[in-house]
Amino acid sequence: DMIKGLYVAIDVDYLAGRDIPRVTKEVLEGGCRLVQLRAKTASARQFLSLALSLKELCIEYGAVFIVNDRLDIALACGADGLHLGQTDLPLSQARRLMPAGSIIGISADSPEDAASAQAGDADYVAAGAVFPTQTKLDVLYGGLSGLKAIRQVVNIPLVAIGGINKSNYNEALQAGADSLCLISAVLGAPDIKKATSEFMTLVEAEKND
Amino acid sequence: DMIKGLYVAIDVDYLAGRDIPRVTKEVLEGGCRLVQLRAKTASARQFLSLALSLKELCIEYGAVFIVNDRLDIALACGADGLHLGQTDLPLSQARRLMPAGSIIGISADSPEDAASAQAGDADYVAAGAVFPTQTKLDVLYGGLSGLKAIRQVVNIPLVAIGGINKSNYNEALQAGADSLCLISAVLGAPDIKKATSEFMTLVEAEKND
Ligand code: NI
Repeated sequence: DMIKGLYVAIDVDYLAGRDIPRVTKEVLEGGCRLVQLRAKTASARQFLSLALSLKELCIEYGAVFIVNDRLDIALACGADGLHLGQTDLPLSQARRLMPAGSIIGISADSPEDAASAQAGDADYVAAGAVFPTQTKLDVLYGGLSGLKAIRQVVNIPLVAIGGINKSNYNEALQAGADSLCLISAVLGAPDIKKATSEFMTLVEAEKND
Repeated sequence: DMIKGLYVAIDVDYLAGRDIPRVTKEVLEGGCRLVQLRAKTASARQFLSLALSLKELCIEYGAVFIVNDRLDIALACGADGLHLGQTDLPLSQARRLMPAGSIIGISADSPEDAASAQAGDADYVAAGAVFPTQTKLDVLYGGLSGLKAIRQVVNIPLVAIGGINKSNYNEALQAGADSLCLISAVLGAPDIKKATSEFMTLVEAEKND
């Protein structure tokens, strides 16, 4: 099972002006093996160009590379997976059009969304925002209670997203998350590699509890 | 050759609030057999939902159905083709990922773009804006001279786009366009079916000249 532990979303808008492949390399150097590329406002050509770079880096580090929103970009760069929100392509179409064995994750705003994603053969469900966040996500604010409610209806991997940091990550794990999707907690750190590495240690320790 | 004569772009933003399948039906009833769906601001799910409806209508009328910008939507709805601008997926990726025999059209801002599209096996090139227009297009303003310059470097079908209406369409044809891509001249008419039908007659007459 590849969807567990730390999951870092490389958000191009959040990182405006930064060197995206360099940032991604820091995340990989820090030990993260599950990376998503999000580019809500980039052109498809820019998005693909970044996706090709990041896919190559992820191959180098043995990491799983997932593209957010765009099935065409995922196909074009040979991503390992695709993450879809409730207003993106439907899961059934993504399953039909992505190569066999691809990872498909779905953002769920409710237990109904989550159950439907699991029934539709999603590989994981992402729930949130678990905590308040400034980052524009594909999910509404569901809080810890929303996360718990979704945990009760799915047994596929559950990814917690939204406002997760060092002081609250364990609440998300205790609410049933298998994986923590981080943006600002890692990408906003002065030393991204160090922040990633520290989170890896925290998440590993929690798992062995 | 399917890229000739009238080509109507169903622009969802231009048609804000209108019944898109109904408008498309009028265009088809008016005789147009080449239809593009453009939805720059819709969600992927909304875009796909419209694309599936329009593809079905186009099958019913024996018309060619082309999706603008999004390869994922084109694949998901089984479109006959895909139209790409210079900031969308590259032509090489589209050719690789679309089913064999799909039509791929490219918006060209310059003779260089156009020659490169032809060399990359594009099925047609769109050039414009030939005349000033309010509609947000994937092309810069190239004028009639831009259209003529592109005609000189490509022998694949050339689609003229941007501000074409009843008083200027013949200039675009005389500059070498094989096809006229219309938005407001048809969709802005009080009777869309009648406007389409009148343009079909004009374009046919010009061809027989
Ligand atoms: Ni999304």
